[in-house]
Amino acid sequence: MSTDLLIVGTGLIGTSIGLALRDQADVALSDRDPATLAAAVGRGAGRPWDGTERFRLALVAAPPSAVAEVMTRLQQVCPDAVLGHVASVQEPVQSALTAAGVALDRVCGSHPMAGKEQSGPQAASADLFVGRPWVLCPSPATSAEALDAVRGLVQACGAEPVVLSAAEHDAAVALVSHLPQVAASAVAALLERSGARPAGAVPALELAGPGLQDTTRIAGSAPGLWVDLLRHNAAAVAPLVHDLVAELSSAAAALDRLAAQPGDAGAAAQVEGLISRGNVGRSLVPRKRGGHDRDFAVVSVAVPDRPGQLAGVLVSAAQTGVNVEDVRVEHLPGRPTGVIELLVQPAAQEHARQALRAAGWDVTGP
Amino acid sequence: MSTDLLIVGTGLIGTSIGLALRDQADVALSDRDPATLAAAVGRGAGRPWDGTERFRLALVAAPPSAVAEVMTRLQQVCPDAVLGHVASVQEPVQSALTAAGVALDRVCGSHPMAGKEQSGPQAASADLFVGRPWVLCPSPATSAEALDAVRGLVQACGAEPVVLSAAEHDAAVALVSHLPQVAASAVAALLERSGARPAGAVPALELAGPGLQDTTRIAGSAPGLWVDLLRHNAAAVAPLVHDLVAELSSAAAALDRLAAQPGDAGAAAQVEGLISRGNVGRSLVPRKRGGHDRDFAVVSVAVPDRPGQLAGVLVSAAQTGVNVEDVRVEHLPGRPTGVIELLVQPAAQEHARQALRAAGWDVTGP
Repeated sequence: MSTDLLIVGTGLIGTSIGLALRDQADVALSDRDPATLAAAVGRGAGRPWDGTERFRLALVAAPPSAVAEVMTRLQQVCPDAVLGHVASVQEPVQSALTAAGVALDRVCGSHPMAGKEQSGPQAASADLFVGRPWVLCPSPATSAEALDAVRGLVQACGAEPVVLSAAEHDAAVALVSHLPQVAASAVAALLERSGARPAGAVPALELAGPGLQDTTRIAGSAPGLWVDLLRHNAAAVAPLVHDLVAELSSAAAALDRLAAQPGDAGAAAQVEGLISRGNVGRSLVPRKRGGHDRDFAVVSVAVPDRPGQLAGVLVSAAQTGVNVEDVRVEHLPGRPTGVIELLVQPAAQEHARQALRAAGWDVTGP
Repeated sequence: MSTDLLIVGTGLIGTSIGLALRDQADVALSDRDPATLAAAVGRGAGRPWDGTERFRLALVAAPPSAVAEVMTRLQQVCPDAVLGHVASVQEPVQSALTAAGVALDRVCGSHPMAGKEQSGPQAASADLFVGRPWVLCPSPATSAEALDAVRGLVQACGAEPVVLSAAEHDAAVALVSHLPQVAASAVAALLERSGARPAGAVPALELAGPGLQDTTRIAGSAPGLWVDLLRHNAAAVAPLVHDLVAELSSAAAALDRLAAQPGDAGAAAQVEGLISRGNVGRSLVPRKRGGHDRDFAVVSVAVPDRPGQLAGVLVSAAQTGVNVEDVRVEHLPGRPTGVIELLVQPAAQEHARQALRAAGWDVTGP
């Protein structure tokens, strides 16, 4: 007996892959923790692997430090199968595989750029990868057959394959993921110090708005997970953190000069230059899956803060032909009203305002 | 003839105050730019001031550097009126008022902690301040009558008054607003450099997810506005940016050690300590207006990407008694489906899943 696909490691990623592919392939599952395996099987991600059954393709969805050991064992069971992994750092895994003597022509690393705040098989979903980039990292030794097999799996999950070298991948995630994590954690760590305020003083953080909320959101990430990621990608992340230190040191020096002399034109130009370069950098960040900084127009509606109001507003919008691109909800604790913001195409804004007013909603603004 | 309230400066804040109070007071408006004044009058925020009419209370909603000059002129017209302002930095304005010889017993500074990405009278709305903190900064010379008059205006706008000294205010906004701005701009400025990649290379930023989006959102802010804010509050912001440099320098040094020796336990503990302290700081940030880190549960629904689906899901939720706290919408470009995430109270999650499934929706996850 043999299976199309063996998934080793049934956490969030492994179980989500099983759920995505269960209608297209016979999927066998393995996990060193029986409870985690049982949960994945219970979710319908596949059937348990017996440890000897052969397979065409195996995907190792285990922590980076475990990949080499697992692949060594898998090549003993089934030497001609293709082996993939989904490690979030690639160069250290390639080095470990080489050191372990794994036959690299059968191996293709990969990394789906998708995740959740929650982990484990219970948080898995079949659509986790739909529309997301999924990086393929063949080594120089990887065969075309191995690359094609892993690429096929990626496409079957609905993701967009992007081929990068392991070094390119590690540099890219250092920039778009690991650097912002370190920066957000450092800003939040300074907030933690502000807890040491004089007794009875009004806490500064009560004045915080959405800017601080957004800037520090990922500072809530799990320390254990992140120290492992940063440890394995330290060579790529460290230079970027040094660059950030240099940017902020220049800014601090310019602010010192402005504190001494608010009219210092050179210092002001330096601060303005930082904000301006930040504008350019920000404009390069994709805003939604697949789209760059699309500017939607906002239509704000004040509503009583009770169930069903959001549905009512959206029903009115749908009935009058308004296509709502996104929605934001603001509750106002202690007040009987909330604000619903509908994001629409700019050309549709005026029609949306008028249509919702005509339907009896309290549309605020012009 | 006289008026209850004179608003000088009819940008976003001044016009929003007029809109909030027009049913409760006779509001006169003034702006040095006739077009801006006409726009505010057109929005219904008040009637134009003739420059001589007396007033009980005047609120100066002009840039910080203009407040002293405007107040000097207003005290010549109406020496016994109370004067307020809404400057986003307070100590420099108090110093300028003292230097200009303004009678400080009639003056109370303030700062509404509300704003928008857009500016000007067209972006104004009557509910801009509802439920938001609004800091009152009386100087030692401010009379109880002046403080009460400005506090009354704040409450009439629906905001929550918070009394702080000018120094406390400036330190608080340095921490919760100016520091995150500098940090987000610096991270985004590093992204801008990544634009200088080899021709034909896959851009790293295409791999970016929501973490980078959130961390750099405010890096899109206007340079001209921000250089003025930072210039006037440089004495409070500079030490915080130095503290951030120190945090990040330690992190960079620890990452250097991990790059050389991934097993360095001391360096790993230092990185883990930063992330852990960031967790604590993050938990101190109010997440929604008035509430701390409330953890809602997520119910995900896959829908065809066409108008009316969002309304349909929310109608089903409302009909089955599910109270939706917030909504997120993910479009998947090039694919015929989208994902709607409903945020509900954790205790309501299971009911919400079952109710929506029973109503025929494609609820993903367990």
